[in-house]
Amino acid sequence: MASTPTSADKVFFAVSMSLDGYIAPAGMDLEHADDPSHNDWGRQWAALQSWLFPQRFFRENLNLGEGGETGPDNDMAQEVFERTGASILGKRMFDGGERFWPEQAPFHTPVFVVTHIERAPWERPGGTTFHFIKDGIECALAQARVAAGGGDIRIGGGANLIQQYLNAGLVDEFTISLAPVVLRAGTRLFDCIEFGRVGLQLVDTVPSPRVTHLRYAVSRP
Amino acid sequence: MASTPTSADKVFFAVSMSLDGYIAPAGMDLEHADDPSHNDWGRQWAALQSWLFPQRFFRENLNLGEGGETGPDNDMAQEVFERTGASILGKRMFDGGERFWPEQAPFHTPVFVVTHIERAPWERPGGTTFHFIKDGIECALAQARVAAGGGDIRIGGGANLIQQYLNAGLVDEFTISLAPVVLRAGTRLFDCIEFGRVGLQLVDTVPSPRVTHLRYAVSRP
Repeated sequence: MASTPTSADKVFFAVSMSLDGYIAPAGMDLEHADDPSHNDWGRQWAALQSWLFPQRFFRENLNLGEGGETGPDNDMAQEVFERTGASILGKRMFDGGERFWPEQAPFHTPVFVVTHIERAPWERPGGTTFHFIKDGIECALAQARVAAGGGDIRIGGGANLIQQYLNAGLVDEFTISLAPVVLRAGTRLFDCIEFGRVGLQLVDTVPSPRVTHLRYAVSRP
Repeated sequence: MASTPTSADKVFFAVSMSLDGYIAPAGMDLEHADDPSHNDWGRQWAALQSWLFPQRFFRENLNLGEGGETGPDNDMAQEVFERTGASILGKRMFDGGERFWPEQAPFHTPVFVVTHIERAPWERPGGTTFHFIKDGIECALAQARVAAGGGDIRIGGGANLIQQYLNAGLVDEFTISLAPVVLRAGTRLFDCIEFGRVGLQLVDTVPSPRVTHLRYAVSRP
């Protein structure tokens, strides 16, 4: 059963993962963010996310222009966005995004950044406000629940933050978009999860020609 | 395109894999084969294979008794068996199987064991004959093609042998039965595959309540 049985809102994450378990290629870090040829990370990242980039919803949400694919991949991208009432990010993921998101950051909801630094809320045009939380993951989640207004709470990443929430038993479900690619190195989604710590139930599989979307519910075994 | 365009028979593998990429738990080795409590490998192995064990075809093929599930998982187990005209195994996988297979080994076809030792063919009741090949993976495959009589050739494992065939460009397709379980440690399927060495195309997804069967075609990018 979900870890928050009294609440209708779900805590979830949704990531693209390679067949060998990576959600980010090696070398894709703040230091080399402007150099996608470093360790070939740009090509690997593109392969991992290639199902998402051409989708109509993704393009519209990032103001990349008109048009784009519609179909199961587009539906998935849109559904993840629309169910999300608030997001939670790790500090490094925020630092990367701060450099690369457009002025209208693509969340359009409150976002809670788990960090050790003090910083005033940062409001962006388009409805995204970043709140910086120094008191840990449970505090961030409690605030996100209030801010989500009945919507779901997305753990936006990175992998370390997702692992912290999984190990704390605070994730209700997740979606993996399993890309047909082998990266061999990088950041693994499940690096620090113990066998038996989380029980998983396969809820749903949405295939597309590009990727397989796998939805799992998390239970305490 | 397949790496053997002039041949109708396919070279494939079919394995159960955890969400974090393992096809065997840590501690499941010859030394501890009789001690499934060692590192908890028995429970992890059962979780990985739990889709397969209750299937009618699996039970009949291992003489485990009447009855069993029918449905997509049973169809998958039966299809993998029926398409296979010959199998290729690594030496360690054979050593483990030699101890635990019933007298009627479950292949019922020729099996080629890639090894460094010399050994005469070993014929078992029920149609399985093990041939021991000292001249490497390509030689084993050439002999398996002849013996398969037009059927497909299954690379039965372990992971190291599968990786050798993948890196040599000799695999046409594979099926991963992705189990909803996180093992954290053990033998990874894709440990030694370079990004870009193999191009993968998602061919088919067969969901079941227990597992997701994912079929990929391999190409040379």
